Amino acid sequence: MGTDADDKPREACGVVAMRCINKDAATYIYYALRAIQHRGQEAAGIAVNSKGLIVKKGLGLVADVISSEDIEKLSGKVGIGHTYYSIKVSKPENIQPQFLKTGVGDIAIAHNGIIVNSGLLITKLKNEGKNFIIESEEEAIIMMLADAIRSTNDIPKSIKAVCKELIGSYAFTLMINDRVFAIRDPYGIRPLCLGKLPDGKGYVAASESVALDVLGAKFVRDVLPGEAVELTDDGFKSTNIAPSINRAHCFFEWVYFARADSVIDGLSVYDVRKRIGWRLAKEAPVVADVVVPIPDSGRAHAYGFSMGSNIKMLEGLMKNRYIHRTFIMPSQAARDISVREKINPVRAVVEGKRVVIVDDSIVRGTTMKRIVSMLRTNGGASEVHVRIGSPPLIAPCYLGIDMTNRDQFIAGGNKEIDEIRKEIGADTLAYISIDGLVEAITMDKDNLCLGCVSDEYPVSIPGERRRFQQTLANFE
Amino acid sequence: MGTDADDKPREACGVVAMRCINKDAATYIYYALRAIQHRGQEAAGIAVNSKGLIVKKGLGLVADVISSEDIEKLSGKVGIGHTYYSIKVSKPENIQPQFLKTGVGDIAIAHNGIIVNSGLLITKLKNEGKNFIIESEEEAIIMMLADAIRSTNDIPKSIKAVCKELIGSYAFTLMINDRVFAIRDPYGIRPLCLGKLPDGKGYVAASESVALDVLGAKFVRDVLPGEAVELTDDGFKSTNIAPSINRAHCFFEWVYFARADSVIDGLSVYDVRKRIGWRLAKEAPVVADVVVPIPDSGRAHAYGFSMGSNIKMLEGLMKNRYIHRTFIMPSQAARDISVREKINPVRAVVEGKRVVIVDDSIVRGTTMKRIVSMLRTNGGASEVHVRIGSPPLIAPCYLGIDMTNRDQFIAGGNKEIDEIRKEIGADTLAYISIDGLVEAITMDKDNLCLGCVSDEYPVSIPGERRRFQQTLANFE
Amino acid sequence: MGTDADDKPREACGVVAMRCINKDAATYIYYALRAIQHRGQEAAGIAVNSKGLIVKKGLGLVADVISSEDIEKLSGKVGIGHTYYSIKVSKPENIQPQFLKTGVGDIAIAHNGIIVNSGLLITKLKNEGKNFIIESEEEAIIMMLADAIRSTNDIPKSIKAVCKELIGSYAFTLMINDRVFAIRDPYGIRPLCLGKLPDGKGYVAASESVALDVLGAKFVRDVLPGEAVELTDDGFKSTNIAPSINRAHCFFEWVYFARADSVIDGLSVYDVRKRIGWRLAKEAPVVADVVVPIPDSGRAHAYGFSMGSNIKMLEGLMKNRYIHRTFIMPSQAARDISVREKINPVRAVVEGKRVVIVDDSIVRGTTMKRIVSMLRTNGGASEVHVRIGSPPLIAPCYLGIDMTNRDQFIAGGNKEIDEIRKEIGADTLAYISIDGLVEAITMDKDNLCLGCVSDEYPVSIPGERRRFQQTLANFE
Amino acid sequence: MGTDADDKPREACGVVAMRCINKDAATYIYYALRAIQHRGQEAAGIAVNSKGLIVKKGLGLVADVISSEDIEKLSGKVGIGHTYYSIKVSKPENIQPQFLKTGVGDIAIAHNGIIVNSGLLITKLKNEGKNFIIESEEEAIIMMLADAIRSTNDIPKSIKAVCKELIGSYAFTLMINDRVFAIRDPYGIRPLCLGKLPDGKGYVAASESVALDVLGAKFVRDVLPGEAVELTDDGFKSTNIAPSINRAHCFFEWVYFARADSVIDGLSVYDVRKRIGWRLAKEAPVVADVVVPIPDSGRAHAYGFSMGSNIKMLEGLMKNRYIHRTFIMPSQAARDISVREKINPVRAVVEGKRVVIVDDSIVRGTTMKRIVSMLRTNGGASEVHVRIGSPPLIAPCYLGIDMTNRDQFIAGGNKEIDEIRKEIGADTLAYISIDGLVEAITMDKDNLCLGCVSDEYPVSIPGERRRFQQTLANFE
Repeated sequence: MGTDADDKPREACGVVAMRCINKDAATYIYYALRAIQHRGQEAAGIAVNSKGLIVKKGLGLVADVISSEDIEKLSGKVGIGHTYYSIKVSKPENIQPQFLKTGVGDIAIAHNGIIVNSGLLITKLKNEGKNFIIESEEEAIIMMLADAIRSTNDIPKSIKAVCKELIGSYAFTLMINDRVFAIRDPYGIRPLCLGKLPDGKGYVAASESVALDVLGAKFVRDVLPGEAVELTDDGFKSTNIAPSINRAHCFFEWVYFARADSVIDGLSVYDVRKRIGWRLAKEAPVVADVVVPIPDSGRAHAYGFSMGSNIKMLEGLMKNRYIHRTFIMPSQAARDISVREKINPVRAVVEGKRVVIVDDSIVRGTTMKRIVSMLRTNGGASEVHVRIGSPPLIAPCYLGIDMTNRDQFIAGGNKEIDEIRKEIGADTLAYISIDGLVEAITMDKDNLCLGCVSDEYPVSIPGERRRFQQTLANFE
Repeated sequence: MGTDADDKPREACGVVAMRCINKDAATYIYYALRAIQHRGQEAAGIAVNSKGLIVKKGLGLVADVISSEDIEKLSGKVGIGHTYYSIKVSKPENIQPQFLKTGVGDIAIAHNGIIVNSGLLITKLKNEGKNFIIESEEEAIIMMLADAIRSTNDIPKSIKAVCKELIGSYAFTLMINDRVFAIRDPYGIRPLCLGKLPDGKGYVAASESVALDVLGAKFVRDVLPGEAVELTDDGFKSTNIAPSINRAHCFFEWVYFARADSVIDGLSVYDVRKRIGWRLAKEAPVVADVVVPIPDSGRAHAYGFSMGSNIKMLEGLMKNRYIHRTFIMPSQAARDISVREKINPVRAVVEGKRVVIVDDSIVRGTTMKRIVSMLRTNGGASEVHVRIGSPPLIAPCYLGIDMTNRDQFIAGGNKEIDEIRKEIGADTLAYISIDGLVEAITMDKDNLCLGCVSDEYPVSIPGERRRFQQTLANFE
Repeated sequence: MGTDADDKPREACGVVAMRCINKDAATYIYYALRAIQHRGQEAAGIAVNSKGLIVKKGLGLVADVISSEDIEKLSGKVGIGHTYYSIKVSKPENIQPQFLKTGVGDIAIAHNGIIVNSGLLITKLKNEGKNFIIESEEEAIIMMLADAIRSTNDIPKSIKAVCKELIGSYAFTLMINDRVFAIRDPYGIRPLCLGKLPDGKGYVAASESVALDVLGAKFVRDVLPGEAVELTDDGFKSTNIAPSINRAHCFFEWVYFARADSVIDGLSVYDVRKRIGWRLAKEAPVVADVVVPIPDSGRAHAYGFSMGSNIKMLEGLMKNRYIHRTFIMPSQAARDISVREKINPVRAVVEGKRVVIVDDSIVRGTTMKRIVSMLRTNGGASEVHVRIGSPPLIAPCYLGIDMTNRDQFIAGGNKEIDEIRKEIGADTLAYISIDGLVEAITMDKDNLCLGCVSDEYPVSIPGERRRFQQTLANFE
Repeated sequence: MGTDADDKPREACGVVAMRCINKDAATYIYYALRAIQHRGQEAAGIAVNSKGLIVKKGLGLVADVISSEDIEKLSGKVGIGHTYYSIKVSKPENIQPQFLKTGVGDIAIAHNGIIVNSGLLITKLKNEGKNFIIESEEEAIIMMLADAIRSTNDIPKSIKAVCKELIGSYAFTLMINDRVFAIRDPYGIRPLCLGKLPDGKGYVAASESVALDVLGAKFVRDVLPGEAVELTDDGFKSTNIAPSINRAHCFFEWVYFARADSVIDGLSVYDVRKRIGWRLAKEAPVVADVVVPIPDSGRAHAYGFSMGSNIKMLEGLMKNRYIHRTFIMPSQAARDISVREKINPVRAVVEGKRVVIVDDSIVRGTTMKRIVSMLRTNGGASEVHVRIGSPPLIAPCYLGIDMTNRDQFIAGGNKEIDEIRKEIGADTLAYISIDGLVEAITMDKDNLCLGCVSDEYPVSIPGERRRFQQTLANFE
């Protein structure tokens, strides 16, 4: 965990939108995307409008995809950008921003989230004579928008009409000719916030506030659930696109996905993690000598645990920062080693000690098992206690996190905590409770999506239970 | 600091040697090099002997240079490896291991350190009819070795004879046909340690103990100053190559260079840093609300400072882990931004707080100045106090660290601390004292190289003062 | 000429279609495309159908774009392929085959030719609610096809209906789900022929017969002007898509574009060129010592001239076969040289001789001027006579050849031949007459497109004269 | 043959030397190397001297290895260059120019040829304390030169002394600090010629005269066998390095290796080939309808054959110019095809005809067999007669051509011509006789190396017969 991306829930995307007074939109988008690069390292792209649409996108990190020459070509006052995580990305066509040249102009979109009913929408559109390159959610949204704008000749009204058809999570930025929008689903499942560049240089929307920070932009506010915000020369122009009775913010954003220095829907990610650690110390106390964070994912939780437990925290596990790329070695010698090279115990910290390790979550448990074993064998820890900053993950996510299979969870199938403890080899194991998590987030439980830990979902998903069936009947 | 490699003293190299019972030497070297990749990211290489010398080396990280196919080709029981830092590396010829096919066999070397008198040695060799590709220290050492072995037909005796000619710092691994050695200069300036693979699979030498850890190897001992150790099928065979009256371990290894989970010359790097922080809290106390480490370089020192001061430590600065590669943007907009994208304050931690930031060292001071300003402006800190885990850097290093110019130091030229404080904009600034540093390291002052903070050097360097002129007169 | 691609009319594309009994379609297409690589070196692509559409395309030669792994993935019984020439190709989206997933299935197209009215068609489609990625002719054709098939549920009927809307030149291959077609415009402007693989392994369509030869396929026949041919398991199924009153084969295919070993519309390219040379010798005789072909474009014409004139032919100009790639050197020294490195006179052949050089055509004349000068200065030729295997190029091509600007022609603007002769520095200059050319081709003049040499075009082009205005009134 | 590089004897190298009045040496060398790129496509390099040695070399064509930026860096008035063919080139170290920094200065060499006694020389040097990187002939020569210059302080004298030690073929260019030389072995086995740049801009030496042509340089003369020529500011300064009693020019240079537009040792390559063809028509006449050259290797011979036989020549075989790169396809379909894609018969030329195909040589015979079969099957030729412009290859070359194995020759082991004819499937087969070849070259037989067709060699090669044992006894 923490050190093994393969053993972590992975987030789908980061999005940005920009409206500037001069033609620097792509420069700002470039740096904003790099600030949220943790939301997707597989592909990236920038689209700007400057007497027509210009797009550069490709596989790789933002810095691999966008060159200095590209930035010069991408001259324009408005633009959107995207970072992508997907194992499906194998072809250039799939990378975002996606765009189409329509009868009402050029439309480009950068989307974070999953439209649960996209299959039906695509089929409907194809039956109506629409043609797709990759049959993506994004193509469908653009096509529906183009049709709606043709009918109504009113972009905000059209966005509202289209969003009414969408079931699922979405936080997307949209460029229609030289107009640019930031839109969030009625539950606010994925984050999206607004900022103002210094010296009146323009306005920005992005998935996380860190993207504003890097630009020197002032955080203005979050996009509201069910709101479409146009970035104008003077600021923001809001349209309510749906009644938002209750929210369903993905709790995992605070627990793991977002950068610790982001503020999401009014809550500091770092603070939430620290409070989770503090509560965890109260819910599941332990007699121990040292608190050791799993770098880097468990660090903030561990600070909190250290404060809550009055056990000193030290860095007892060191991460090798150069293991970006590896390959499968043919020999057994290599297989034994590759486990150890990502993380290494600091013997001076853990030897002979009762150690509490703290991380944000456990998915498969394989990495956690290795770390526990390594702390004992290589580090000489006398006891290893594991504390986890989220409740047991037991159900798939259909709304934007790459955990789509029930079989992958070590905690799946109503397994007893003690059974999991044995599997990972810990002396004790505790997860924070759902209620403890909710209190640490300091948000009403009804305003959080807890699908993956409760098996109840905020939107209707075929074959799954829905939490608030009465609400939004008219909308969805 | 800490986040800006351009503003840090940089170490030259990491070295590895391996002798295995089976032909997996290259696999072990590969992983060992990755574990010490922080000692040089510019180039890397592996040389093995298997009925002749096979070498693969190139520009880039170990994982960029050595492919799975290379490892298969590099089949052999003995080998050496190298990671390189140098701004001079522009040609394939310069990359190590360097090797020559000589009249006494194939000799390859992987070297960490600087031979102060290499220019004289090379001139002498050229006058004797020797021919160079790049006129490197390493070519010179190999040529001298070949001549000595031809005369004496005794490798250890030859190593001793050659080392007698070398003035400077060196920790190198050496492969002569199928024999492999680890050698350390009489002062032990650069680190080098020995380990034993599990299950009797072989023996290893490496710059840092973390390279042993990743292989699952047991740490056996450090190579002694002035010792040449042959790795044999049964263990280690030692030759004393020089009288070692006093040592001169580079203190910067503990303060910054080495990985925190390494143990160098018997001292845990993490522990030393923590003790430095603790002493710093006693030497230069401050009334503050929160201790914030500069990630990642100041983290262990900050833990110590937090303990020594009883001020809680929190992660008030977040580092963007994806900023490996950047390019010069043409616009002013870009220049303003690039400062901020590497590091970002966590407002929830520092807003309205009296903040102590802790780092290991200051070279130019430019990054520190930016961080102090950022904590006030973007983070809202009410006070910013700076504490540094090394004494002021005032003099060049001639023995392996890339600080060769007196002009680069913010603390150079007898500048008052208060002047530096004003330059970086801090409310207070304190460095640890030399004596405090020495006590934190827990080693006799006479056994440390303190050249860059004291302007006195352990070996004779033209134009510089030498500390112990009486010693080793016969040797050097 | 002949050696300077920049000074040659360039052809747009090569197309292939394949239906096999086993899943080797991509393998056959790969080799067929390489055989017609001269029809486009900027980009290439292959699309196959195997339970869904699979496409691989990219910038570069066929061998650069399609790897061995790609071929394995592109497993399928039917497929189409394309080689592309275009200075517009800068983005992956533009490369062919282009494809769309429509309500009637997956449609892919590989197109050679230019649809003169594509702008109008695209506007119409956008007004009808269709959305484009790149607003290409190919997207338009696919969309029109999808709509037609939805209405009629009859693919051949739909192809006929769509082609009725197209004005211009086209020879395209089309894959609709697992059905595959080869279609040619009513004038047969661009070539397209049909073949049968050996051992009943399948059927093929391609731009030139050399693509059949490489597969060991038997040439069956040309696709007729105004014919759509489906490749079936049993052979070919023909649909007449337009009344073809007269043909308008591009004469340049025989003169320059096609490979000399191709047979186009029943006529051997090599034979036509030889007959052109023979006629040229009769039309414009010269007293000379040696006939020298411009390699490789003028070789066949020169053979013919040699036979017609009874002057022996020798290779007096040598081409450097390794000048694929070059760069702009900064110095004057380099500029002087780069002219000479492409072609070099053989002094032994031309020194002191009266030389006739023969090429297929002259566009700008800059290269021809250099060659004439080089033959005199470097080769020592006493006289240089130039004979050209096509009439003077005076008008743009709108139907598939990259000569769209009247200003580029050395022969433009009613210039006297003698003026051109002076410009290129020849002792005498003669072009073949239009009638001579027609006789050499051995086809009725009314069945050739002679637009670029006569300024009259077979289809209506805004601002240009049309040759046969009465015909096809109902069709176009 | 002719179209299958795998079935051709391959030449090792091309060399260039340059002395200019301005700093453009690298520019001139770049273009000169491209002109002789046919002499080696595996690697290339340029070395110049400009206050020290600067070298750029790498794997690939000249244009792949040397960039525009490289040329700017390689600023200097003197330099040498090299193109390399070798299956051994797998490491950067092997590529030429090779260089060493010696006690007498920087020495760089670019070598064409093979030093038969290099193994002995290297062993001797190693025993004397010299150290090698790759144990190459070139390193040995440089080291011997450095030692000689140290002793004599006279470069020409030193070159003479070193060459006295060398047995084998060599034509090399040499740069010693800012002095540059062109040297040829006493037999003149490999070619080397001298030229003068226009406008007094400097002097040049190169393997073939085409390298002079491309620079606009005037051919001055060939370097004489046994001559070392220094390029000076005023022209050439000659030193006789060995008595040259008889020459042993490699006949294959005229027959195949050199570009047809080169003049080697006073003889036009094109003329020699044409005379070979003419003689072949007389020696082995045939009743046939058409002479078809194997493109491009047999074209000049075929012209000659056509003249000698009065049978018209036509291009009955077309080569695909885009088959530079290919990969092994997994399927049988692919294997069948790849034979055909390199070369294709022109049916219009050969159908129903009695065809004579002419090529320069046959090594293995595999490609020739395919072409004969293809002419019958695909082309419809009624008879296929094969005429070869060199005598049967029966013995290895030790002096610079990549034919080192007796087993590879279809004509090896005293095989009857009729047996070879049957193997390749021709109706008749004839090679030119050795005497016919010699007469066509118009040089005394004693002045040619005919080793590969006579099994007698000009220098003593262990295990082989030597032709002129009495000569040069003192020299070798």
